[in-house]
Amino acid sequence: MKKDGLHPDRYFPLDKTARELARSLYAQVKDLPIFSPHGHTDPAWFSENQPFSDPFSVFVAPDHYLLRMLYSQGVSLEDLDWKTFARNFHLFRGTPSALWLKHVFQEVFGLEGELNEKTADHFHHEIDRQLKTPQFRPRALFERFKIEVLSTTDAPTDSLEPHQVIRREWPHRVLPTYRPDSCINPERPDFFTELDRFGKITGENTRTLKGYLQAHRKRRAEFKALGATATDHGHPTPKTLDLSAADLGKLFDRIVAKNFTSADAESFRAAMLVEMARMSLDDGLVMQLHPGSYRNHNPLVFEKYGPDKGADIPIATEYTAHLKPLLDAFGNDSGLTLILFTLDESTYARELAPLAGHYPCLKLGPAWWFHDSPEGMLRFREQVTETAGFYNTVGFVDDTRAFFSIPARHDLARRMDARLLAQWVCEHRLSESEAVELIQDLTIGLVKRAYRL
Amino acid sequence: MKKDGLHPDRYFPLDKTARELARSLYAQVKDLPIFSPHGHTDPAWFSENQPFSDPFSVFVAPDHYLLRMLYSQGVSLEDLDWKTFARNFHLFRGTPSALWLKHVFQEVFGLEGELNEKTADHFHHEIDRQLKTPQFRPRALFERFKIEVLSTTDAPTDSLEPHQVIRREWPHRVLPTYRPDSCINPERPDFFTELDRFGKITGENTRTLKGYLQAHRKRRAEFKALGATATDHGHPTPKTLDLSAADLGKLFDRIVAKNFTSADAESFRAAMLVEMARMSLDDGLVMQLHPGSYRNHNPLVFEKYGPDKGADIPIATEYTAHLKPLLDAFGNDSGLTLILFTLDESTYARELAPLAGHYPCLKLGPAWWFHDSPEGMLRFREQVTETAGFYNTVGFVDDTRAFFSIPARHDLARRMDARLLAQWVCEHRLSESEAVELIQDLTIGLVKRAYRL
Amino acid sequence: MKKDGLHPDRYFPLDKTARELARSLYAQVKDLPIFSPHGHTDPAWFSENQPFSDPFSVFVAPDHYLLRMLYSQGVSLEDLDWKTFARNFHLFRGTPSALWLKHVFQEVFGLEGELNEKTADHFHHEIDRQLKTPQFRPRALFERFKIEVLSTTDAPTDSLEPHQVIRREWPHRVLPTYRPDSCINPERPDFFTELDRFGKITGENTRTLKGYLQAHRKRRAEFKALGATATDHGHPTPKTLDLSAADLGKLFDRIVAKNFTSADAESFRAAMLVEMARMSLDDGLVMQLHPGSYRNHNPLVFEKYGPDKGADIPIATEYTAHLKPLLDAFGNDSGLTLILFTLDESTYARELAPLAGHYPCLKLGPAWWFHDSPEGMLRFREQVTETAGFYNTVGFVDDTRAFFSIPARHDLARRMDARLLAQWVCEHRLSESEAVELIQDLTIGLVKRAYRL
Repeated sequence: MKKDGLHPDRYFPLDKTARELARSLYAQVKDLPIFSPHGHTDPAWFSENQPFSDPFSVFVAPDHYLLRMLYSQGVSLEDLDWKTFARNFHLFRGTPSALWLKHVFQEVFGLEGELNEKTADHFHHEIDRQLKTPQFRPRALFERFKIEVLSTTDAPTDSLEPHQVIRREWPHRVLPTYRPDSCINPERPDFFTELDRFGKITGENTRTLKGYLQAHRKRRAEFKALGATATDHGHPTPKTLDLSAADLGKLFDRIVAKNFTSADAESFRAAMLVEMARMSLDDGLVMQLHPGSYRNHNPLVFEKYGPDKGADIPIATEYTAHLKPLLDAFGNDSGLTLILFTLDESTYARELAPLAGHYPCLKLGPAWWFHDSPEGMLRFREQVTETAGFYNTVGFVDDTRAFFSIPARHDLARRMDARLLAQWVCEHRLSESEAVELIQDLTIGLVKRAYRL
Repeated sequence: MKKDGLHPDRYFPLDKTARELARSLYAQVKDLPIFSPHGHTDPAWFSENQPFSDPFSVFVAPDHYLLRMLYSQGVSLEDLDWKTFARNFHLFRGTPSALWLKHVFQEVFGLEGELNEKTADHFHHEIDRQLKTPQFRPRALFERFKIEVLSTTDAPTDSLEPHQVIRREWPHRVLPTYRPDSCINPERPDFFTELDRFGKITGENTRTLKGYLQAHRKRRAEFKALGATATDHGHPTPKTLDLSAADLGKLFDRIVAKNFTSADAESFRAAMLVEMARMSLDDGLVMQLHPGSYRNHNPLVFEKYGPDKGADIPIATEYTAHLKPLLDAFGNDSGLTLILFTLDESTYARELAPLAGHYPCLKLGPAWWFHDSPEGMLRFREQVTETAGFYNTVGFVDDTRAFFSIPARHDLARRMDARLLAQWVCEHRLSESEAVELIQDLTIGLVKRAYRL
Repeated sequence: MKKDGLHPDRYFPLDKTARELARSLYAQVKDLPIFSPHGHTDPAWFSENQPFSDPFSVFVAPDHYLLRMLYSQGVSLEDLDWKTFARNFHLFRGTPSALWLKHVFQEVFGLEGELNEKTADHFHHEIDRQLKTPQFRPRALFERFKIEVLSTTDAPTDSLEPHQVIRREWPHRVLPTYRPDSCINPERPDFFTELDRFGKITGENTRTLKGYLQAHRKRRAEFKALGATATDHGHPTPKTLDLSAADLGKLFDRIVAKNFTSADAESFRAAMLVEMARMSLDDGLVMQLHPGSYRNHNPLVFEKYGPDKGADIPIATEYTAHLKPLLDAFGNDSGLTLILFTLDESTYARELAPLAGHYPCLKLGPAWWFHDSPEGMLRFREQVTETAGFYNTVGFVDDTRAFFSIPARHDLARRMDARLLAQWVCEHRLSESEAVELIQDLTIGLVKRAYRL
């Protein structure tokens, strides 16, 4: 073990007995395959299997966690390059970005030691060299990473061509996920363009409610035919609304006539969550709901650099009242699975665990986005488990667009689960045999069941 | 110590020095009598002293924690029996239900090992057999459990007959608690029926404000005569309102005329909290306020199975502004004791501790309901103590309708208090002699003083 | 080390390895000078250098933490004296007040052991005796405490005479801070009086917007000339509003005409935050925003005893939407530094860390007021660091009006930082060399940079 290298006991409890148990629990799952049913990788990587680009384009440019932190400290996004990134690596101390990147550098590229101004060139050279080798092509890495399932996120207007190619050519499971936000949220700037593309791709008149709903049904079926098991919904709030067909029709007409208020838009999104749940009961796709992000909070950054540059900021989120209409309609039906995520941790113990600990259709997604971190994972388990148990959660989901970080993120999650279970066994809140079963369930069992994989 | 048995160090810190101190602190209180001034046991158990029923009826059917979890995992409440419960016992891993039940099975029935499908019959047989013996009659258990005071929860329309019998026949303290929600919340379906029964039982015209308030005064006096020291109020919000007699009269008239809005109902509940505080200053009954639960969130479950089946879901709660009218009126009067509970932990450090750390009338109830758990108790102490101290809290209150679990719940609370105190002594934030005094106060002193027992 | 004395390892982790590392990290910063850029000490202490008064007036009367706790337990503020305070010292168990006072008694006055009824006279005698000696004059203590910078809080209408005297006579840095709340919040009872005094002291017509804004500019310049590097803003909410000159003018006219609603007052405060930010970009003063306190919640206490007696109660606070207008205007400008504080910890991970981890102008102040405590500091670091990193925070700020407690508070903060860093190093989330750099930055580097000292 070299100085500064990854420590084999990282993230484990300090207490010797608990640490040894954590080691042993972790050892039982560390080499298990990876199920990644929610994320934002590019399916074209696997259909085309071209080499990844240079280190900066692979690691920095697409990573909103890195961009936001550098930007917050006055680094201009125009001037950002590998050297600047390396010079500022100390900014990530204490953040999961540092932990993930150290894992990637060492485990994927064999680079130990700190990335900093002095080592920047060496890191760049080594990573660049390796990225050009056949072993670093996307398909080779997919296998090396032991990925069993990798889901992407795809709009209803996506051609899904890469997915078709993968399905024809390659025996591994890269699955699309139906993410219809662009066709559901009338307040998105691209909504009406998307609505027309949606009509074109489905051959339906998406300016009528009937055609619009039928278009969703068609595309869901096509996604499913390519292996999709889930939909995903990123809404400002988790508001749901169970409208009569007549009322939904009137609302839809106001939307397509561009004659709607912000409240109408919220109602439409809310009503569409209920419609999506209804369709899920028909076609079996699992629903995921990711609310509570104020997207593109910084207009200057949005205008200059576009979305996903780290300028989405969470807002307080209410679930108990907002989800009630959907739950009144379908909450007692085990045929529906609705996986809830949150950026508002105050809802873990107050709303989410009580809801998931009662409604058959609900499951809780793991600590998400800003909370996908050691402390975030502990808070999730500590605040959720005593009310919802372990079995109303869905295991770990990495939510990444950074392909190289997938093993790092799953490794961190497995270690944190081993840590918590070991701690609780040593406090005699679980037996060791329960922990042995649980670590398997948290790593593999729950995610497979929840996402129907 | 058998495998899987209760470990004597359970819930204590892992650090050796802290664990030894926790042991020693716990040893000083583990055999102290139990004061249980808030709960939902049935007084008829003690007036009639009949044997408890079968294991399923005693342990599963009335326990909303168990029902909700089983239901959330697709278990039908119709098909639920002891075997199904046992087969699904793994669902409770990591929840306080598992900890409580293991304690009950082992300490009360001498049953070690896991309850599961294989052991289900054995557990059932043994529990059933013992339940039929004289030592398992309610009064015998009350004494075996070393209960010093046990308060029940009773509506203004309850006859209190069991309490009268107990008082005549039996030297132990089973006390009624005045819980007038059914006569105060106009939005309850049984409100008007209850209002009439309230009139009948008091001989007052409860359709006039004067008679209505007088009816409360009379019943409070009758409760007090049977030993009651407290009232309890379960409101949707902690809103309070200090109305003039004229305005309260007009509001009351709209209520009894069934000509009121939801806002009127909220105002009436808010105004009645102030009236109850006023009466408390007269008769000395301690007030308890339990807000923030969205009751019967699941209409299907409510219609089929009734209330208290685990379908009450918390909502965000605001105290600072809502309590102000009551506090403006009586907040500086030490003659009033108002004990606040919450289901919204984000209010612990933000509102509740600052309020209780200032107003003479306020005390904080312990971690409640979903938070009556190891992590919940830690969060309560860690978020409350630094601002409100220990002496503005009221010790432990079990809030249970599961009589058998009372010793388990108090044991868990005593262990968690010992754990926290030991930890803080070892961090030199308290001296050992302070911890020795505090563990006594947290177990006995505070609850006796706060509830005037 | 005497019994009950301050333990050299206080607040450190219990794990032996982590404790030793915490010791070593702490040793590197414990004797560093104190930067105290935010607090409420009286500059006249240092300009006049008169002896401090008696123990009660120095330690109890001005300390809202002490007053509130005593009051909450029924101690009358009229009858409060040193003896009563000593008799009730047990109430502070588990609170930072106890930790701070023990530090002051032992480290500043050499008094070990507990303060209680028995030792009250001895403590009083010893403290009183020492307060009369030359070594306990303000300037001597300032040097003994190794204070490098001490900022006070001053209204725009303050003469700043003590600051002028200090600047002339004494080489140490006691700096004013521009706190214009009394001239910005139209709902303060003293607003109009202050507005007139503001006009008088600046020679501007503060009943016109132009004169009013010019008055701010003038006073800011005068504060700056006396060393001020920062402004401070205590608002009910963090709402900001970027009005056109015309709209701000109309709003201002309604305010000065005393013809405004509560919503107007909120808009004016919101708009003035943007104006203050604009001025900060001109003159370089760092902005601090302290929202979320419901001031003088208890009218009886306010009428009888005035403000700052412990009756300010926090309320839920929203930052993401409220700060947006200011951030839209200046959020991307590194020339502005806006330091955010909160009394609503649910915003740490949800809003504040995401905001500060993106916007160049934002930094996070430390755990504040009720959260300036061991658990409060841990929650701050645990909930903020993974998203905002360490480098978007500003180190420790004591916010005290209790001069004697300054070393105690900084010592506690340094110990808690050493504890957390040691813990994370032992969990292999940081390297030891990173922790060595960080402890220096958290103690000195960040505060100097953020406050431009």
